[in-house]
Amino acid sequence: MERTSVEETLTSVIECMRACNHCFSKSLQEEDLHMFTECIRLTRECSDICTLALNALETDSAFSKPIVALCAQVCDTCAVECGRHQHDHCQACAKACERCAEACRTLVAA
Amino acid sequence: MERTSVEETLTSVIECMRACNHCFSKSLQEEDLHMFTECIRLTRECSDICTLALNALETDSAFSKPIVALCAQVCDTCAVECGRHQHDHCQACAKACERCAEACRTLVAA
Amino acid sequence: MERTSVEETLTSVIECMRACNHCFSKSLQEEDLHMFTECIRLTRECSDICTLALNALETDSAFSKPIVALCAQVCDTCAVECGRHQHDHCQACAKACERCAEACRTLVAA
Amino acid sequence: MERTSVEETLTSVIECMRACNHCFSKSLQEEDLHMFTECIRLTRECSDICTLALNALETDSAFSKPIVALCAQVCDTCAVECGRHQHDHCQACAKACERCAEACRTLVAA
Repeated sequence: MERTSVEETLTSVIECMRACNHCFSKSLQEEDLHMFTECIRLTRECSDICTLALNALETDSAFSKPIVALCAQVCDTCAVECGRHQHDHCQACAKACERCAEACRTLVAA
Repeated sequence: MERTSVEETLTSVIECMRACNHCFSKSLQEEDLHMFTECIRLTRECSDICTLALNALETDSAFSKPIVALCAQVCDTCAVECGRHQHDHCQACAKACERCAEACRTLVAA
Repeated sequence: MERTSVEETLTSVIECMRACNHCFSKSLQEEDLHMFTECIRLTRECSDICTLALNALETDSAFSKPIVALCAQVCDTCAVECGRHQHDHCQACAKACERCAEACRTLVAA
Repeated sequence: MERTSVEETLTSVIECMRACNHCFSKSLQEEDLHMFTECIRLTRECSDICTLALNALETDSAFSKPIVALCAQVCDTCAVECGRHQHDHCQACAKACERCAEACRTLVAA
């Protein structure tokens, strides 16, 4: 894979991992917790698959493509779920997940 | 470190990691979610430090002792929090955390 | 997914994760290190995807199937590579990876 | 913990995690592999503890301080080992580890 596009993807993956962790923590502090159960689940999962993708890309793994493709899939689902809430942490997380999913798909298609 | 006691600790660490993941998932399905916010946080953290401890022990890491000591500390906190709830997943998690904390401390003292 | 088959898969995933970590550590101590570079890479990756699979199964993740399918793929590759060496740690790792790949594929097909 | 210093630490932790993954991969491609066995071990461990530290800081974990303190300890050891080799990936890794260790210690002392 070309190094420039890997760099751009890595930046998006890191931003997504951070936004997911932040949203996980903030969602647990919300009053209306029942609205956020899927956010809490998905931000944890999304953060974990982002970590795997980051390690794969940075170590030139032979499995980078399927891992990054799976990362895009989890990001899409997390973006839809967090996008349903107007709270800052959810909106920021949804945007970071969307950008990450797109960057991952671009890399897989390259 | 002696292999027998490492084996026993590993078994406890794996049981704890599994119980924490199960409790995380079940806590998110509870009616009275506000009672479980700390369980949800702590079971995720406990599962992650257990993974690190397992990898450290299995790869003979030079940092096994401080990692296992930190694992005991997180397990203790998670055991206290989950122990406050009568729900099966919390009681099972509290017991697994207690056993893991004890096994970890025994290994560190060895 | 049915609980019995999930339990069996979890046991195989845990055994595989442990065998991979052990093989990683032992491979780094071999005289003829150049024979083991791919083992070292793959056992690390296989241990990490096993951790993700274990967390997904234990938390009833919506992504369990694609994660477990990817786990089978990494296990297959690691089994082939470790299977080429007669050393105990590599043979044990290859067998654990084969069993894990099969258990994962059975679960995905269920 | 104050948000500004957490932000600075996070940047250092992420850079360190990336440099360690890159050094791990490059070390496995070196001719004189025996010189790099400790680098390979330590960069994996350092990447994993950096991931834990990043998750802890980003989720406002109650265990951030001991996790970040342990991260500093692993970074120090990895910096010394990689610092012994003149290869670009090792020098870059050593510098990233040093900066991360310092940022972690500053945060723990705050």
